[in-house]
Amino acid sequence: MYKLVLIRHGESTWNKENRFTGWTDVDLSEKGVLEAVEAGQVLAKEGFQFDLAYTSVLKRAIKTLNTVLDQMDQLWIPVERSWRLNERHYGGLQGLNKSETADKYGEAQVKIWRRSYDVPPPALTADDERFPGRDRRYADVAAADLPLTECLKDTVARFLPLWHESIAPAVKSGKRVVIGAHGNSLRALVKYLDNVSEADILELNIPTAMPLVYELDADLKPIKSYYLGDPEKVKAAMDAVAKQGQKKA
Amino acid sequence: MYKLVLIRHGESTWNKENRFTGWTDVDLSEKGVLEAVEAGQVLAKEGFQFDLAYTSVLKRAIKTLNTVLDQMDQLWIPVERSWRLNERHYGGLQGLNKSETADKYGEAQVKIWRRSYDVPPPALTADDERFPGRDRRYADVAAADLPLTECLKDTVARFLPLWHESIAPAVKSGKRVVIGAHGNSLRALVKYLDNVSEADILELNIPTAMPLVYELDADLKPIKSYYLGDPEKVKAAMDAVAKQGQKKA
Repeated sequence: MYKLVLIRHGESTWNKENRFTGWTDVDLSEKGVLEAVEAGQVLAKEGFQFDLAYTSVLKRAIKTLNTVLDQMDQLWIPVERSWRLNERHYGGLQGLNKSETADKYGEAQVKIWRRSYDVPPPALTADDERFPGRDRRYADVAAADLPLTECLKDTVARFLPLWHESIAPAVKSGKRVVIGAHGNSLRALVKYLDNVSEADILELNIPTAMPLVYELDADLKPIKSYYLGDPEKVKAAMDAVAKQGQKKA
Repeated sequence: MYKLVLIRHGESTWNKENRFTGWTDVDLSEKGVLEAVEAGQVLAKEGFQFDLAYTSVLKRAIKTLNTVLDQMDQLWIPVERSWRLNERHYGGLQGLNKSETADKYGEAQVKIWRRSYDVPPPALTADDERFPGRDRRYADVAAADLPLTECLKDTVARFLPLWHESIAPAVKSGKRVVIGAHGNSLRALVKYLDNVSEADILELNIPTAMPLVYELDADLKPIKSYYLGDPEKVKAAMDAVAKQGQKKA
């Protein structure tokens, strides 16, 4: 049996301001740092040991992971950064807050983008300063892979190659893996592992900086999954998941 | 022409207490964190961009590097951790402070260990809790490579394979590399690059958290090298190096 731990980054400065963040590289808020410290402390207390970590190329996930590993005294483990673990790219919505978005596109349209699995927001153009092709951290990514916008279906599609080519083989080789990433890239993994439907995955919200442990069988099929942390917070998170009609809760 | 940047970690809690640290995984002091912030700020101000970072598996170097990269907004670059960049292993002296060491072994003997290139301090035995073979972070290191003690010559010998097999090829491929490491593993590199004699390298002290820039030719031979930072501090460091009879200063 294998164990795999997922951690969504702590609160960011833009979560606070309720802006569409996506690939914008914003920092953790002070609260977000404290959440990461707490996540590391609970993993340390539960005696978790990791051999390998994965994260995105966005600082809110990297810093959450670094903070967790520091609390566990395991900063020395190898850390793989991949753009495939980045948050969903929100295209032309990136940087807008909810009311600006509603003003610009109308409430009804925003609902469609938020609640559909396969309708992406407006695409960026390549001359937009938000286009990832203008950022040197994506210089090695094939032009065809660089998103101008993404629906959740697109995020799932670009995350899965990392799972199949790198993370799953590492887990199967016996490495104890932790993944520090984002709401939607972790949804992509949960959808795949638990075989969640397109409708249900949109309702599944992974709480910030609360370690989500998967116990997996030899074929990496989930045996069970559970959150770690303050029992009240865990119960609230699990109830929320149950309400969302998730079988795995 | 290539540029390579070396950064010794900021002050650690044991530097303060004047203990032989070696492979003991002590944290940065508050002053050490501030030094790292300053190093990152000067590199950011000078417009340095990195593609790849190397560090040891000891937290004082990892945290210094992370802090530097955070200040430069380049936390997303790949970071390779290697035990070959660890501090010199001080064998049976690890954990002792200067006066304890003098009491136990005599002043004269301590001077010999400090000032000779090839006389190692007393070796640990494999049942000593300080033996690296008891720490899972070294589980993949061949038993024959795990030190029980090291003289500087030994540190040079175990560092150089990493240079030849990984760092040098990366630099030659055009990657802009930063190395966050320790006083003696960086001495090992400086000795190799500048072809410093065994006698002179013992007198060369690399200041904590002051970026040391090497400009290298196509064969990775140094064209020049210089420290970055507060001009007074840089001058003091360079004067100290000059006094030590170093040609490269």
